[in-house]
Amino acid sequence: MTLECAMRAKSVAVVGASRTETKRGYQAIKILLDEKFEGCIYPVNPKEKSILGIKCYEKVSDIEDPVEIVLITTPAASIPAILEDCGIKGVCGAVIIAGGFSEIGQDGKKLESAMVETARKNDIRLIGPNTSGMINVANRLNLVGLRNVPQGDIALLSQSGNMALTLITEASIKSSKGFSYYVGVGNEADTHFHEYLKIFLDDPETKVILMYVEGMRDGRAFLQQAYETTRHKPVIMLKSGRSATGQRTAGSHTGALAGLSEVARTAFKRVGVVIVENSDEMFPAAETLSSLPPVRNNRIAILADGGGHATIAADLLSDANIDIPTLSDKTQDKLREILPAAAAVSNPVDVAGGADANPLVFAKCAKILLRDPQIGGLLLVGLFGGYGIRFSKSLAFEEEDAAHQMGKLVRTTKKPIVVHSLYNYAKPHALDLLRYYGITVYDSLEIASKCIGVLADHGNFQNSYEAQTNFVFDWGAKARRAGKDIIELARSECRTVLLEHEARSMLELHGAKYGVYRLVDSADEAIEAAASMEGPVAMKIVSPQILHKSEAGGVKLNLTSDEDVRRAYEEISVRAQKYDPTADIRGVLISPMAREGLELIVGTKIDDQFGPVIMFGIGGIMVEILKDVSFRVMPLTNREARLMIDDIRSVALLDGYRGRPPVGRKALRKLLLTVSEVVEAYPDIHEMDLNPVIAYQDGIEIVDARILLKAPDLCANT
Amino acid sequence: MTLECAMRAKSVAVVGASRTETKRGYQAIKILLDEKFEGCIYPVNPKEKSILGIKCYEKVSDIEDPVEIVLITTPAASIPAILEDCGIKGVCGAVIIAGGFSEIGQDGKKLESAMVETARKNDIRLIGPNTSGMINVANRLNLVGLRNVPQGDIALLSQSGNMALTLITEASIKSSKGFSYYVGVGNEADTHFHEYLKIFLDDPETKVILMYVEGMRDGRAFLQQAYETTRHKPVIMLKSGRSATGQRTAGSHTGALAGLSEVARTAFKRVGVVIVENSDEMFPAAETLSSLPPVRNNRIAILADGGGHATIAADLLSDANIDIPTLSDKTQDKLREILPAAAAVSNPVDVAGGADANPLVFAKCAKILLRDPQIGGLLLVGLFGGYGIRFSKSLAFEEEDAAHQMGKLVRTTKKPIVVHSLYNYAKPHALDLLRYYGITVYDSLEIASKCIGVLADHGNFQNSYEAQTNFVFDWGAKARRAGKDIIELARSECRTVLLEHEARSMLELHGAKYGVYRLVDSADEAIEAAASMEGPVAMKIVSPQILHKSEAGGVKLNLTSDEDVRRAYEEISVRAQKYDPTADIRGVLISPMAREGLELIVGTKIDDQFGPVIMFGIGGIMVEILKDVSFRVMPLTNREARLMIDDIRSVALLDGYRGRPPVGRKALRKLLLTVSEVVEAYPDIHEMDLNPVIAYQDGIEIVDARILLKAPDLCANT
Repeated sequence: MTLECAMRAKSVAVVGASRTETKRGYQAIKILLDEKFEGCIYPVNPKEKSILGIKCYEKVSDIEDPVEIVLITTPAASIPAILEDCGIKGVCGAVIIAGGFSEIGQDGKKLESAMVETARKNDIRLIGPNTSGMINVANRLNLVGLRNVPQGDIALLSQSGNMALTLITEASIKSSKGFSYYVGVGNEADTHFHEYLKIFLDDPETKVILMYVEGMRDGRAFLQQAYETTRHKPVIMLKSGRSATGQRTAGSHTGALAGLSEVARTAFKRVGVVIVENSDEMFPAAETLSSLPPVRNNRIAILADGGGHATIAADLLSDANIDIPTLSDKTQDKLREILPAAAAVSNPVDVAGGADANPLVFAKCAKILLRDPQIGGLLLVGLFGGYGIRFSKSLAFEEEDAAHQMGKLVRTTKKPIVVHSLYNYAKPHALDLLRYYGITVYDSLEIASKCIGVLADHGNFQNSYEAQTNFVFDWGAKARRAGKDIIELARSECRTVLLEHEARSMLELHGAKYGVYRLVDSADEAIEAAASMEGPVAMKIVSPQILHKSEAGGVKLNLTSDEDVRRAYEEISVRAQKYDPTADIRGVLISPMAREGLELIVGTKIDDQFGPVIMFGIGGIMVEILKDVSFRVMPLTNREARLMIDDIRSVALLDGYRGRPPVGRKALRKLLLTVSEVVEAYPDIHEMDLNPVIAYQDGIEIVDARILLKAPDLCANT
Repeated sequence: MTLECAMRAKSVAVVGASRTETKRGYQAIKILLDEKFEGCIYPVNPKEKSILGIKCYEKVSDIEDPVEIVLITTPAASIPAILEDCGIKGVCGAVIIAGGFSEIGQDGKKLESAMVETARKNDIRLIGPNTSGMINVANRLNLVGLRNVPQGDIALLSQSGNMALTLITEASIKSSKGFSYYVGVGNEADTHFHEYLKIFLDDPETKVILMYVEGMRDGRAFLQQAYETTRHKPVIMLKSGRSATGQRTAGSHTGALAGLSEVARTAFKRVGVVIVENSDEMFPAAETLSSLPPVRNNRIAILADGGGHATIAADLLSDANIDIPTLSDKTQDKLREILPAAAAVSNPVDVAGGADANPLVFAKCAKILLRDPQIGGLLLVGLFGGYGIRFSKSLAFEEEDAAHQMGKLVRTTKKPIVVHSLYNYAKPHALDLLRYYGITVYDSLEIASKCIGVLADHGNFQNSYEAQTNFVFDWGAKARRAGKDIIELARSECRTVLLEHEARSMLELHGAKYGVYRLVDSADEAIEAAASMEGPVAMKIVSPQILHKSEAGGVKLNLTSDEDVRRAYEEISVRAQKYDPTADIRGVLISPMAREGLELIVGTKIDDQFGPVIMFGIGGIMVEILKDVSFRVMPLTNREARLMIDDIRSVALLDGYRGRPPVGRKALRKLLLTVSEVVEAYPDIHEMDLNPVIAYQDGIEIVDARILLKAPDLCANT
């Protein structure tokens, strides 16, 4: 792989190399030298003979040895020509530092396109532009102005150099963990997030992937790659730019799409990405996931000395939907044997001063708790590490013993322990020992609770991993001839809206026949059709020119007698004619009035980041008021169809209310899956809107169906 | 005030004083000596002559000098007798360390009551029991086992000794601020939260009050005192125990009521209490509120160097509903003059490297921003303090100059600056200088954003301060004779439920006549009544014995003809008789069917912590499904009535939907205020339930009204 060749390069050319110490072209070479890059450095600058003692070349193609990566520090406009030259040399990749591309507007976008085209023609992969650079920590290929990046197993992808600096600083001062790679993703002009993810999945040095994302160019490809990655390596993400102002800032920074919509949040979670909301939690979450086994059953024990901390931790874990089960009688008995009478042993466990003279008690409790098969992980909160400080130095040795025992306990039980300690600031040795065993320690209750929480998230995801998910659309494979004919007819008439009977036909072709209807073109035919239907009927005008049927007087409801039907037919025809004398009237759609039931909505759209997306929720008049809908990236699986139904806030409505029977969920799931299939079958479909869909105990009925096609290449203005 | 005398005591007796170094009775004296308590210490222990060189007394009443406070370290059972002896001596207060009172159950509750009774009889105020103690930092009255508590202007009230330790440690290692008092509130057996609040309001040493609360015994008194306090001194609260498990833990700790219900959250905010959700935010929020002026217009500028941090900060402030306005052209022009072309000047302001060689740029930007009358405060995020570390030592001096300038800017503009700095860990001198001027600095973006946020909260509260709020119920003052008669009749019949026409009468007496009805007791009378009403009518059985009217067949709807009414009357009577042959049937209530409109619910209940509370929300069948309701502690003001209507999620329904006109809000407000008045007028009312209340453009109608009375002293089982 070309990108892999670049990121593991053993030879680097620096274009824009300089003898001026304040310039990036000087600093880049200096840092490679200082950090002892394992390969060869080639400064490139037509005006210099040597820089920092290294021979300088006029251009990249002059270099006599192979060059795998090029760091380009010159301004935007110069880049395409440099890339042409790099192409002659056959370099694998280039890091483009300069801004001034798509993030500045139309001119920048053009320049970016030209640059990418040149790169692709020459088989060069680009990192950036508008990036702080890239570091391969293991081989000391440091193409960023950051020194002393601690080496470790976390691969960092960031769209902000400042956030990278923040995380690297945090690792240096608070942790013994470090990084395998840092990539400043920049504008994603050529290489996209998912391609880095693939490299990190295959990289033996990398155990977890940590991402700071402001915008993402190809959400669907990312989902597919994340889905293949997260089973093996946790992916942690902070997505910023969710507010309007945040988007403004992110927009000015990267020029890509912003916003953590509900669609994005649900999609990321579905593929096992661990979402963190606070920047404070990013590094701790990565550190914990890289150091400890996941919680396999979502059940945590909390161990504390005194109240307060335990109460707060219990609140935090409950907020995160983590179970803090009451301990079994057997486990409670064992705890009682070693704890004073005042102790609480149900969970949270409060040793109530029982460790004051003997901090080994924590290790004993930890053993009892983690050996209980009911418990999947332990959160120790409060004062551990501080007993030697608070009471007597000799207790510090006991705490160290306890740390060794807890460390070994994690190894043997394969269950995690995360520790909150008020004394973390004092750096007691016992806490360093815990870290040696991979047990993570934080002085924030919120962060410690979040960290045991992400271990539970990751375990839950692995438990519920769904083998058949696939985000690659097999466009058109399931299309039917009759369906294509409907679209072709619309296209031939320069329409982007399918007529209602056409939309219904599309669904029916794929098995979603919900509701009876007939298209008629005379009053007599209408009467005959109505007679064949049960109960009162509804009639609607069908014309490509009349989209707002009610406004045009083209809708009549609750018609019972032949006379009513005849009069309705005539009125509809006359009013439609009056509304638009040029309208091409295809007939009148007649269908039975739907029985009263639960009004739902099903819709699809093309999301800018994720492509085809399906929506489900409470329909009818409540759509706008309740805004109670859920989203999924299509294609759907049966499981995701079930989950998206359960996701709506008012899901209880489906279980029946005011004496109504519950609605049949199987039929609903089938409708959602059919809609997903239809969208996949016909790439021309832009939007679908089924509203209301009325659900009953024994099935569903679609009252109104609308399908919009993508704007065609021709007749775009008709 | 006795409590004040105790908390400012110049003389302290330690009951349970000991020569054994591991005992609290020894440590208490040692710490008073070590910390140089400014008054006299009197050890009390009948078995010793002296402790740590101080004369020991057999009992408190033997001490020849006045004693203002007594620290009692002996077990629970010994306390009442000790308090009797203290009474002889005339001490003001006692700190009770022992647990074993109400938090352990019924026996403990009895002991606690006995103790409180003894104390009250002897005019002694109690702090605790089940507390870590109390510290008056200024006069070094340290009755807790915590040393080196930094002195300052934050008064700390905590129900967890561990949380106090956490906050005091945080102050010591991260801040230059400190505490005026610490009180471990314990079980609140005698002295309640609001009494401490009163003392801190009057205390010149205290500028802000910081509270960690698990449960509160008298929420209403607290609201009243907080309302009087927060205008002058900010009150910051973390309320834990909001989850079921958290409540379990908090319950075992303090034996008081737990849970941060929606009622509590809304009530605390109404009286200006600053609620923080994370323990990490507690001390920073207090520190910031004690150091900086509030943001007076909810409008913040963000100043950054590079993206990432600014994007995250913008998200956080937006989440907190703080405005980040686009800057005026004038301000943008001024910024452009001093910043490079790549800088963003709209807000967030990104200096884009423009400070790399010249960190004074931050002070210049700060001046431009804070002198803009549109901007109420500044959040500086990123790297300030680190330019001297990153680039060259000489820049550190420039940063120090910038710090002086920003400090003075805060003083002159009376607008706050809060700083996030990645380099806080390195303790650069410039950041210490900022702190000297009261500018607070954090290494967490989340905490810095929260801190500027609480300054905005506090400013918003002061702007919207409502002078007429009063949480003291004037029980019964507004009662009407006729209303009392209704309740007396119900009482005389041993009823706790008012019959529907009685409930409606209660509301009507206070001006809430919404809907026509008549109580009839013959079919003929029913027909006559129906004839006097417009449209179809509804009929309901009225009997103290028949509460579930529909179940008893006692409800008939949509009756149009005389025949219908007669048949309905007869059926209702027969069925009611059959349902309960002993039922005392008072008649049949007849009323017009309500027109279709928006179904709402209004209810009241007595909250365990806050007393009478009113609820408003979407009614009818949607109550259970949507759970879309808002709460307020009564009495209501007109403003709070308006706010509680706006608080519901589906408030848009009130503005009209599906072509319906908006509903009249004034009538709704009036109903809420009347309900509040009725509950205040009749202390016997336990619950009221008006559901549905149907709202129209031109008024409202109450379809069903139910009032429950408190269980009486007698006939409780009838």
